[in-house]
Amino acid sequence: MNSPLQQTLLNAIRTIPDYPRPGVQFRDITTLLGDARAFRRTVDEMVQPFAGSKVDKIAGIEARGFILGGAIAHQTSSGFVPIRKKGKLPHETVRVAYSLEYGIDEMEMHKDAVKPGERVILVDDLIATGGTAEAAAKLLNQLGAEIVAACFVIDLPDLGGRRKLEALGVPVHTLLSFEGD
Amino acid sequence: MNSPLQQTLLNAIRTIPDYPRPGVQFRDITTLLGDARAFRRTVDEMVQPFAGSKVDKIAGIEARGFILGGAIAHQTSSGFVPIRKKGKLPHETVRVAYSLEYGIDEMEMHKDAVKPGERVILVDDLIATGGTAEAAAKLLNQLGAEIVAACFVIDLPDLGGRRKLEALGVPVHTLLSFEGD
Repeated sequence: MNSPLQQTLLNAIRTIPDYPRPGVQFRDITTLLGDARAFRRTVDEMVQPFAGSKVDKIAGIEARGFILGGAIAHQTSSGFVPIRKKGKLPHETVRVAYSLEYGIDEMEMHKDAVKPGERVILVDDLIATGGTAEAAAKLLNQLGAEIVAACFVIDLPDLGGRRKLEALGVPVHTLLSFEGD
Repeated sequence: MNSPLQQTLLNAIRTIPDYPRPGVQFRDITTLLGDARAFRRTVDEMVQPFAGSKVDKIAGIEARGFILGGAIAHQTSSGFVPIRKKGKLPHETVRVAYSLEYGIDEMEMHKDAVKPGERVILVDDLIATGGTAEAAAKLLNQLGAEIVAACFVIDLPDLGGRRKLEALGVPVHTLLSFEGD
């Protein structure tokens, strides 16, 4: 059963069949982001469990996590920290490799982006296999951050990403779940 | 002469000499984004001229424009529309080519991202030669948007980007200017 909020968000998400390849249902959140009310409700709900907790920084994963993360940083009056694909940050970085379907890639953060002990919420639009989110959590741990939670609009639970984060001790908060994706 | 606000923002921006190549002073805004107060003041100042105007959507240019654009969409209770490098949007798009230093590339928007007559503010972190910003403005014009303004944290006036946008009739609002860059 979906709550009224979940139904509102579901109605705002567009599903694109067979994208990027046959058999995949792509969950397109650009329609949700473009809807002012749905976007605001999404941002509010993503941080609702942490209202009243101290949060120093929001770490957003490139690229859609930047949109939600920027809004959440504004909503919570926190700083924003970008977690990027390798080669895009201009200062000294830390890197963690993660697996893609074919091969590996690396995620990076600036070494001075987070101070030891700072309380950080990790943000992206969707968690699937959790490869990039796990790499992001490892980067934050490496810098000594205290990861308050990882927040996503959408969980694809069959792909196991949530369990990877929970195995690192990171609480996971998601708004919607698409099973069978 | 810089205002106190401009001095605060200047202090929060890191300059990286000779990046990405010798002779270039790279203006790194990640230090500003990571500073909760400086980030909030930046967002407030970027939209201050449009307080009280109706704004339907904020269009952010990939990737740093997503961070500021997401925050500004939240601040103004607007929807957010991504303008991306080609091949990253899953639905039907419009495309405009723009020149890079070597060769050309294309920017894309979803065809249904903006309705004719919607009032849109275009957002990115910095305007230099204005190639991507001009392409973004052309995309918005193609979809029939009314571009209220283009907002940037940093202007590099010697590179002429502002004039390209003004030639399209787009008002440009920037917070800081680095001459001689």
